[in-house]
Amino acid sequence: MLYLIGLGLSYESDITVRGLETVKKCKRVYLEAYTSILMAANKESLESFYGREVILADRELVESGSDQILADADKEDIAFLVVGDPFGATTHTDLIIRARELGIKVESIHNASVMNAVGACGLQLYQFGQTVSLVFFTDSWRPDSFYDKVMENRKIGLHTLLLLDIKVKEQSHENMARGRLIYEPPRYMDIATAASQLLEIEEKRGEQAYTPDTPCVAVSRLGAPTQKFKAGTLKELSEYDSGEPLHTLVMLGRQVHDLELEYLYEFVDDREAFKAFVEKDQEFFKPAPWVPPEEDDFSD
Amino acid sequence: MLYLIGLGLSYESDITVRGLETVKKCKRVYLEAYTSILMAANKESLESFYGREVILADRELVESGSDQILADADKEDIAFLVVGDPFGATTHTDLIIRARELGIKVESIHNASVMNAVGACGLQLYQFGQTVSLVFFTDSWRPDSFYDKVMENRKIGLHTLLLLDIKVKEQSHENMARGRLIYEPPRYMDIATAASQLLEIEEKRGEQAYTPDTPCVAVSRLGAPTQKFKAGTLKELSEYDSGEPLHTLVMLGRQVHDLELEYLYEFVDDREAFKAFVEKDQEFFKPAPWVPPEEDDFSD
Repeated sequence: MLYLIGLGLSYESDITVRGLETVKKCKRVYLEAYTSILMAANKESLESFYGREVILADRELVESGSDQILADADKEDIAFLVVGDPFGATTHTDLIIRARELGIKVESIHNASVMNAVGACGLQLYQFGQTVSLVFFTDSWRPDSFYDKVMENRKIGLHTLLLLDIKVKEQSHENMARGRLIYEPPRYMDIATAASQLLEIEEKRGEQAYTPDTPCVAVSRLGAPTQKFKAGTLKELSEYDSGEPLHTLVMLGRQVHDLELEYLYEFVDDREAFKAFVEKDQEFFKPAPWVPPEEDDFSD
Repeated sequence: MLYLIGLGLSYESDITVRGLETVKKCKRVYLEAYTSILMAANKESLESFYGREVILADRELVESGSDQILADADKEDIAFLVVGDPFGATTHTDLIIRARELGIKVESIHNASVMNAVGACGLQLYQFGQTVSLVFFTDSWRPDSFYDKVMENRKIGLHTLLLLDIKVKEQSHENMARGRLIYEPPRYMDIATAASQLLEIEEKRGEQAYTPDTPCVAVSRLGAPTQKFKAGTLKELSEYDSGEPLHTLVMLGRQVHDLELEYLYEFVDDREAFKAFVEKDQEFFKPAPWVPPEEDDFSD
């Protein structure tokens, strides 16, 4: 059996009791180690918590070496641990499809992921539209495909969850070209970088999917002991020091309930100013007011 | 301290290790018992698992008697247990806001909820739009406000998660009028009822937000030992026997990736037929094809 086990967001003990019992009985335990990190744990602390060896699975192993992970999984129990939920922002459907092809049974043990725990910022989950990802801009690659998705969400009044880039075990172009297995230090996009990239693209596109005054919530270290929320305009957040990773950004939609707003006030510098920005932003994409038909319309 | 603790979806042991440690040290333990249920556990099995008394909190207690729940929470640890995640489909922001007013610290211990675990059906979470709720129709109340939201999601190609009504501890009109505290047996909407209600509203509205041929996924007992997925058209699912509760329905959007489709094939009766329905459905709301401007347009 292949067990896909979600680890939750931060602590070793964020695994479920059933997840832990399962890890303890598995023959081999892999930890998917390239799409996210546990904020208050590492390989060694997990090994000590489980009383088991943990094998780090990088992108190469998961994408090209999945048969190695699945070896003997028809006869033995294998655990594949994923930060958050196995079906969160990054899914491992390809691994499951491969397991099925090999006739291996698969069971998932779910856990919290940013996709649902983000509700802790006070915005209602059912009012979120599609989720978008922001990648680190480089000198030559500044993709803006997220912009249209944000626009779509905002047009129908929905909040947008923006997942921020994580670079783990990346090689420089030079090292890759020369075949040197030297990796760059990990990088995690912070709130100021995300907000600045958003502002740059709005400047370039100029279609007002949002403006520097659009209210957002900075979600830092969600589920970790130092969790912090900060609500402010995009412009304000482009200068915000969000501290240690991980971070996520939420852009508000027009449909902000009073209860949502009340909750967010806890995270703002100035209630009245924030409320004014929310009200101003709500004017965006409002359906055009109904205009009574002119008499001429009936005159044919 | 008030601890809001997610219980996950099904088993007693779906609680996180940190959640369990916290429950064990709390003075009083409340279980929110009116918006969802754990499918493979009940009050007694939870009490035995925790080694603690569990107090059932019905809607009345949570909405009107929250100060009773919060009593002494400035000095003692109180646990408020929620099926799924505390910030899932139903949030308890009002309880948290009240705690803040009373100067009580609040900590959340997250867990899986239907809002993220639904990814187990193979559809990518980031391709979901806003979530909608379907309530049981009565003779006189057949609300269709969900229809516009489904339309909005479908117009921009997104999947829709439809949460199905749960009636727990409801009184009949007669018993309520006579002040008799007699409650109806619990009811959980099944897939066939949900699909039939959807078809009825499409028939009434006739705006083709979807059709009887629109592909959907029936998600039954998500995270429970008897979890089952079934993919088919809305018409097919209106005749589907989905078995024991709980159920959730997902309506596909236009943006179905090949990998999503490949995954769904496991849950269909007839691959080719399902694929044909998906392709037919993808014609809906497609952006109009680009038409070159006529020469006349340049002639002024």
